[in-house]
Amino acid sequence: MNFGQELLKTLNEIRAKKPLVHNITNYVAANFQANVLLSVGASPVMAHAEDEVEDMVLLSNALVVNTGTPSKAQINSMVKAIKRANALRKPVILDPVGVGATKFRGEIIETILGEGKIDVLRGNAGEILAIFGKSGKTKGVDSEAASGEAVSVGKELSQRYNCIVVVTGAVDYVINQEEIFECHNGTPLLSSVTGSGCALSSLIGAFCAVSNNYAVASALALGFYGICAELAQESSRGPGSFMVNFLDVLSNSDSELVSKRLKIYKRG
Amino acid sequence: MNFGQELLKTLNEIRAKKPLVHNITNYVAANFQANVLLSVGASPVMAHAEDEVEDMVLLSNALVVNTGTPSKAQINSMVKAIKRANALRKPVILDPVGVGATKFRGEIIETILGEGKIDVLRGNAGEILAIFGKSGKTKGVDSEAASGEAVSVGKELSQRYNCIVVVTGAVDYVINQEEIFECHNGTPLLSSVTGSGCALSSLIGAFCAVSNNYAVASALALGFYGICAELAQESSRGPGSFMVNFLDVLSNSDSELVSKRLKIYKRG
Amino acid sequence: MNFGQELLKTLNEIRAKKPLVHNITNYVAANFQANVLLSVGASPVMAHAEDEVEDMVLLSNALVVNTGTPSKAQINSMVKAIKRANALRKPVILDPVGVGATKFRGEIIETILGEGKIDVLRGNAGEILAIFGKSGKTKGVDSEAASGEAVSVGKELSQRYNCIVVVTGAVDYVINQEEIFECHNGTPLLSSVTGSGCALSSLIGAFCAVSNNYAVASALALGFYGICAELAQESSRGPGSFMVNFLDVLSNSDSELVSKRLKIYKRG
Repeated sequence: MNFGQELLKTLNEIRAKKPLVHNITNYVAANFQANVLLSVGASPVMAHAEDEVEDMVLLSNALVVNTGTPSKAQINSMVKAIKRANALRKPVILDPVGVGATKFRGEIIETILGEGKIDVLRGNAGEILAIFGKSGKTKGVDSEAASGEAVSVGKELSQRYNCIVVVTGAVDYVINQEEIFECHNGTPLLSSVTGSGCALSSLIGAFCAVSNNYAVASALALGFYGICAELAQESSRGPGSFMVNFLDVLSNSDSELVSKRLKIYKRG
Repeated sequence: MNFGQELLKTLNEIRAKKPLVHNITNYVAANFQANVLLSVGASPVMAHAEDEVEDMVLLSNALVVNTGTPSKAQINSMVKAIKRANALRKPVILDPVGVGATKFRGEIIETILGEGKIDVLRGNAGEILAIFGKSGKTKGVDSEAASGEAVSVGKELSQRYNCIVVVTGAVDYVINQEEIFECHNGTPLLSSVTGSGCALSSLIGAFCAVSNNYAVASALALGFYGICAELAQESSRGPGSFMVNFLDVLSNSDSELVSKRLKIYKRG
Repeated sequence: MNFGQELLKTLNEIRAKKPLVHNITNYVAANFQANVLLSVGASPVMAHAEDEVEDMVLLSNALVVNTGTPSKAQINSMVKAIKRANALRKPVILDPVGVGATKFRGEIIETILGEGKIDVLRGNAGEILAIFGKSGKTKGVDSEAASGEAVSVGKELSQRYNCIVVVTGAVDYVINQEEIFECHNGTPLLSSVTGSGCALSSLIGAFCAVSNNYAVASALALGFYGICAELAQESSRGPGSFMVNFLDVLSNSDSELVSKRLKIYKRG
């Protein structure tokens, strides 16, 4: 597969179709998630009320569920939305922010994974390990757990939940039951911007919205996000200017040049 | 009427009186709304609890109600706040974000319009059509519905609810029962920043807070917002830098120069 | 005490230990608070559900409670979290945003101060006066009350609640039962960015997390925040670029140069 050509095609599809990405998410990252989606040409919508999530899923092209600032009231909404998306065969991305940090977050994720079908589960190594039941030394939204262990655990989770598992870190991994994609694009500066992981999950939603192969779509989203971060960093003096440049690059980068910088490798 | 002189006067009043604009709003745009208000010299406050909205309205100079991320608990607060603002004769702006997208949003807007008096109703063409009962092909917060139809519908809504209707798009319209103002300022880049419509509604609140003529105040707010966007675009490389420059320009633009760029026309 | 050396030491500790600062806060400032914490090298987490705040406090190194957009549901969470932090001897910072504006905010702050022990209470003059029972002419989150009166009231509050009181304004004051520190760093531009006070409270949380002397830690946080704002202003054209430069400077400033600009004075 020529990943560069696939990326070009996907970016063009997003800009042409402007897929509506429905986010049930936290109030810290919501603004940045929406701006990242707008920058690439997708349409964001945030809606969390139990009274409307099913209707919103119907209009949307992807659903992204994020537990960054969870509450009991959200759980029913999340489950309802996921079930509806499943019934309509729309892609569902789960970002289990901070799972492992508290018992409550663990229970929410367990409920979600037990009641609905997730297509892409994206977390850092600590979060992926925590879902498996291993302590991941979660520190806020960061993680110091070894990526290696998370990758093998990811393989098992991929089978258990019949989903794609994305483990992000210095190297990103897209894991499904048959194959693993590695992505080596990105920069540590991303982790100095709050919600950069949440926004990546939203972007995966936009990529899956215009694709039939969610594993490839996830890998392309990781690569594109990472390359835009690399380019943004070149003209940044710190996290403030990086955030600004990043949105500019997401919006205006030369797709051809970007696609040539892709470092995605298929493994296994 | 000399719109340029009126704009200068209004900006000076806002900077001198620092009107307090009370927003009951969504968690995606709240930060940007507050920063836009601060940039022009107004004072923002966000407060949504049923327990305090009436007290907050008492302190405030305008109320802006926004249904971007609605929940059942918000409805009572919104209605209470609006009734209090009505009783105190303070301007009420309603931004019916995403109405038409879900049954729930339609019901909320119907409740709000049925229980209280709105002074300015601001939406895009799709939202205005949806309130009238026509399908507006709402896509997230955007709309592809024809502005023309929305303007004639706006006229009817203006009579039905005895309010000013503002329809925003490539051209913006301020509609009341006697007249229509057209505003031709602005740039498409605004729609690549999340909450730019929400923040415009907050700005209309600030303008109405220091004015007796809400139609003219709304038109001036549209013109000022659009011109600042035009100026910000000149030095921007994408939505990230545009957002930053926009806040700078809202705060520091030469009011005299800005007022000369106004493209507001009275019609009908 | 050599404040410059203490500041250098504290910044190094924060960058090395990456203290986890748990914020129960409002949805307007949450994003900026998180980015400020990340910029200085701390780890932010936002969690408000009654079901998890105690677990989150256990993981955290400081707790910051903020009433910017209060709701009844938050109160129990705040009290639970504070009691847990007290039991674990972790620093608790209270930012009583807008107290004095509504009866409801007054009741919340009274409940919080009655049920738990606060280590650092930070507000503007109007908020500090309102807690004491004097009207502070609160205007949104700003205040025009005289700092002088707030300082003498702060002394009394410091005794009543056995806590450090920080009064911020043109000059900032750190008041405990034995001494007062004055800080003369800062710029008025800070008040044109929403959440700049909230983010300062979060930063005080990060400083206290790595210190045993919360009064000195608070004074150093005020000085550092103010100096970074001064430096950011030098290359800013308005509140938008200021916000960006501020995050850059918080992250990348030359600590030695910064520490030389400190204007902290011990009084009384």
